Amino acid sequence: MSTASSTPGTHSTAMRTHLCGDLRLDNAGQRVTVCGWVAHRRQHGQSLMFVDLRDHSGLLQCVVDGSVDARSEYVLRITGTVSVRPEGTANPGLATGDVELTDCSVEVLSTATPPPFPLDERADSVEEGTRLAYRYLDLRRERMQRNLRTRSAVLGALRSAFADSGFVEVETPLLMPSTPEGAREFVVPSRQFPGSFYALPQSPQLFKQLLMVGGMDRYFQLARCLRDEDLRADRQYEFTQLDLEMSFVDVDDVLGVVSSAVLAAAGAAVAGSGRAMPPIERLTWHDAMNRFGVDKPDLRFGMELVELTAIFGNSGFKAFAGAPAIKGIRVPGGSATHNRKALDTLTDRAKKLGAKGLVWMRVAAAGALESPVAKFLSAEELAAIVTATQAQEGDLLLLVADEWETACEVLGQLRNDLGRPPAGEGELRFVWVVDFPLFVGVDATTGRPKPGHHPFTRPHPSDVEKMESDPLAVRSLAYDLVLNGWELGSGSIRIHESELQQRIFGLLGISPDEARQRFGFFLTPFGYGAPPHGGFAFGIDRLVAILAGEDNIREVIAFPKTQSGLDPMTGAPTTVDERQLRELGIRVVVPATVPQAAPSPRPAAAS
Amino acid sequence: MSTASSTPGTHSTAMRTHLCGDLRLDNAGQRVTVCGWVAHRRQHGQSLMFVDLRDHSGLLQCVVDGSVDARSEYVLRITGTVSVRPEGTANPGLATGDVELTDCSVEVLSTATPPPFPLDERADSVEEGTRLAYRYLDLRRERMQRNLRTRSAVLGALRSAFADSGFVEVETPLLMPSTPEGAREFVVPSRQFPGSFYALPQSPQLFKQLLMVGGMDRYFQLARCLRDEDLRADRQYEFTQLDLEMSFVDVDDVLGVVSSAVLAAAGAAVAGSGRAMPPIERLTWHDAMNRFGVDKPDLRFGMELVELTAIFGNSGFKAFAGAPAIKGIRVPGGSATHNRKALDTLTDRAKKLGAKGLVWMRVAAAGALESPVAKFLSAEELAAIVTATQAQEGDLLLLVADEWETACEVLGQLRNDLGRPPAGEGELRFVWVVDFPLFVGVDATTGRPKPGHHPFTRPHPSDVEKMESDPLAVRSLAYDLVLNGWELGSGSIRIHESELQQRIFGLLGISPDEARQRFGFFLTPFGYGAPPHGGFAFGIDRLVAILAGEDNIREVIAFPKTQSGLDPMTGAPTTVDERQLRELGIRVVVPATVPQAAPSPRPAAAS
Repeated sequence: MSTASSTPGTHSTAMRTHLCGDLRLDNAGQRVTVCGWVAHRRQHGQSLMFVDLRDHSGLLQCVVDGSVDARSEYVLRITGTVSVRPEGTANPGLATGDVELTDCSVEVLSTATPPPFPLDERADSVEEGTRLAYRYLDLRRERMQRNLRTRSAVLGALRSAFADSGFVEVETPLLMPSTPEGAREFVVPSRQFPGSFYALPQSPQLFKQLLMVGGMDRYFQLARCLRDEDLRADRQYEFTQLDLEMSFVDVDDVLGVVSSAVLAAAGAAVAGSGRAMPPIERLTWHDAMNRFGVDKPDLRFGMELVELTAIFGNSGFKAFAGAPAIKGIRVPGGSATHNRKALDTLTDRAKKLGAKGLVWMRVAAAGALESPVAKFLSAEELAAIVTATQAQEGDLLLLVADEWETACEVLGQLRNDLGRPPAGEGELRFVWVVDFPLFVGVDATTGRPKPGHHPFTRPHPSDVEKMESDPLAVRSLAYDLVLNGWELGSGSIRIHESELQQRIFGLLGISPDEARQRFGFFLTPFGYGAPPHGGFAFGIDRLVAILAGEDNIREVIAFPKTQSGLDPMTGAPTTVDERQLRELGIRVVVPATVPQAAPSPRPAAAS
Repeated sequence: MSTASSTPGTHSTAMRTHLCGDLRLDNAGQRVTVCGWVAHRRQHGQSLMFVDLRDHSGLLQCVVDGSVDARSEYVLRITGTVSVRPEGTANPGLATGDVELTDCSVEVLSTATPPPFPLDERADSVEEGTRLAYRYLDLRRERMQRNLRTRSAVLGALRSAFADSGFVEVETPLLMPSTPEGAREFVVPSRQFPGSFYALPQSPQLFKQLLMVGGMDRYFQLARCLRDEDLRADRQYEFTQLDLEMSFVDVDDVLGVVSSAVLAAAGAAVAGSGRAMPPIERLTWHDAMNRFGVDKPDLRFGMELVELTAIFGNSGFKAFAGAPAIKGIRVPGGSATHNRKALDTLTDRAKKLGAKGLVWMRVAAAGALESPVAKFLSAEELAAIVTATQAQEGDLLLLVADEWETACEVLGQLRNDLGRPPAGEGELRFVWVVDFPLFVGVDATTGRPKPGHHPFTRPHPSDVEKMESDPLAVRSLAYDLVLNGWELGSGSIRIHESELQQRIFGLLGISPDEARQRFGFFLTPFGYGAPPHGGFAFGIDRLVAILAGEDNIREVIAFPKTQSGLDPMTGAPTTVDERQLRELGIRVVVPATVPQAAPSPRPAAAS
């Protein structure tokens, strides 16, 4: 367990001298006391019993004379002598496998009901609902111990990094104002003001910018946030966000401190795992789209998008001639693995993603291209495709001719479909994506540009003059941090002057009155002297999952909810007392939906 | 500002080379760029303007040729040369007072509306509601910057200490099950299960003990907790709690790790302040009561309770003869400061506190005692009082004859009334109070003992045999940490075995059925093998307030609510959309109480 911090002596207490997993040949001859749970036991006739005792550090074999009543998961305290195992009985698969505890005296600290599933790797195949209903048992497993300790190490490393960079940790309120945009916020009824509500934070955005107005200069927080959204595999109502804001900075300043903090945290988490972690690259949004077809590129594999437009400038093939953009990807060895049916499926997928069609080409011997469209293309065109894509015999080429952004997006998605390993595997490829467009397209009804981020994002200084004349060409000072194809978080330099803010509102068609209405408690404080500032926020759950090699964030959360928002362990949510609701000035107006589905009996009721 | 971490270089950004407050004679001759707010400016004729520029590190005087439009709280970027101030103009009251910036070029980064109150120490006398309505301005003040940075330093030091001791930081859920005992919990309606509710955590007690069952061994968290209680000067709905739990430990283990963490945190906070911090003492509950009349003794001053019972064993004074306990305190020099009216007030106070009466004695020359009861006492008794209390001429003695606990409590309160300095002043006297009684008195209707803490608190092993025969004499393994007379937090070693738990439930008259009903999701997990464990929790807000020298915790919270639970800055709580409530399956059944009282205009509306 690479992240278990096991400083000698740190873990000795009144009840034990050592952790089970820490004993080695060096300890041979020492009389020690360990405490833990019975992982396995084997009775050898009447005279000997082997007990594998488990604590969070690992297993230790204890040889007990005679027999003790020590069944599975009993909690024992064993004092014994660390002894070299008899020749031929060492267990190289176990960190303590060279030694065992002999001459043992055993104290039963707690008895245990047999657990509903085995507390080792076999539990990985147990239905998740059952694991969550008995999370307190699931957590005893090596995998969960490692994951939660990795999480703790990441939190600690991030905090140290920001504190060392002069950031002040500030706890912003959990009981916030409700916002008109807050359809996905949880609300909390007020007893003091019946009929009024607080809202739980979806993010501390408001407060962190106010802290900059307040001269806090550098703020950070590992903020607990909540969003009442439909739960998917990768979402929970609750999430933890590393949130920061800095004054008097530019993009490089923010990216610099976040980069070193994130690398420190990742380094702490994967130390000794052998996972490679190259320096963080930086791509503009345009390059990310152009080369990877996505604004969160996964750099762990190739298959980059290849620019082919120029080849077909005068093509006789109508579908290509005059297409705004033609791009392709090369699937190494993909010819053999894609029969006609698979190619039809890819074509359907491309169309669902918005392409008008998908052109495939199998690369045969000597660079010959087999494709339904080959007959429409000239020999020069075919040869140029092979050259541009560096195609080899046996490869599969996929081409899309469309608007630039569509061609990129469709091929980027196919690239991920065909080449992307699980995010938790392989090396750690962080990348900054910068210079996002300030606006994303035009609202069909109003004809006005739509903001790409929130309307306080600062336009790129070189593009400010184009804001009115060519808004869609305006870049912003917004940036994302991406890891293995996952967007970990995003941020921007903000607008701090009211003139520029008014120009943006004007472009978006937000009148001064509407701006005051919607953003008043932002704009008013800014009128009292706001410093230039920018910040960033990123989700801890996904970061830790990738670092821990997990695909599902629930594996790195101690007590997650199920996908329907239930806690099968405690039964939450539940009905509450009528009297309590009366005090809050509210009444339940539907028959309470009883949460179903603790897929296994709720422990409280089952006992 | 002792806690401002101002590592050279850490704070330089694209926009500045130095912080305002960091420049010294050593920097003379350097060309530097600073950013900040205009604290003051003075125009000297047409030719010179003096600008005091402020950032969180302090003030810097900048001498600007000519004049710039730079009014109060404008945000400026100034490049200039650090110069030694002309002889006779140095300002020893300012850390940067030996230098000034000359040959300045000034860039106005933001303009500012004049603030509603001056952003210096004069704001201390501004009405608190106004300060909170404009908290983002209040935070620019040196006092608030220092307080929040002290808080951040305390949080960081605590985390480092626990991480270094092998503790795992685990984030427990904010969306919890509602509990039948939870009258003071905030509830959160579920959209997924309309009519059902989550509850926000009053503490992570349930989860931290489950983490021990789950083998986490050592858990800690700086937990955000919420309690819907009537707000007093020293309470907020939201509070931060350092929460921890350890397995396989005894009382000394817990007190040991908490002591070093708290001393490290306090040391970080008051470094350089000259405030003394003696080692943490340990008192039994009995000694604390007997000597200080309170279970949270303030050790910063004397006036300890003196035991006088034996003196009056055969007294002719009826009120004293046969009293179970007679105790007194000596108020040094109190004779002159307490006229007859003041003494009557003290007597009333004692009676309100539960005493049958209060005996006062003025110490005159040669140890003569002047008192309404002097005539009932023998010369030997009077002399013995003087000896026992070490009374000096001019002192005032206060005596109570009553049950031991009443006599202690009344005199303990009078001791605090008469001698206790504000908690934020003077030295830092931490003290552990241990061996609290397991039960506190007997329920008048059931005749059963009442638990002193929660019913999972472990009885003292030496007293377990007395549980049935003499329950009120049974000590527990519960302990409190006290600082300058404030209870910072409490904890205990827990019961982990069901037999002992059943005995306690039996004594309390809780049937097995009722126990399952009320404590099921505790007891069921414990049946699967619970390790011996214990823990502690303490409030950060009060600790930081005392360390920061503040009496009110709102001064160490970035965005507190008012005493009526309002946020005058954002207007929370507010009404929410009807449609949103419909989705949650609830309806407001009273006309919404509109939060009043933003004592100054709500900024959002005022803009």
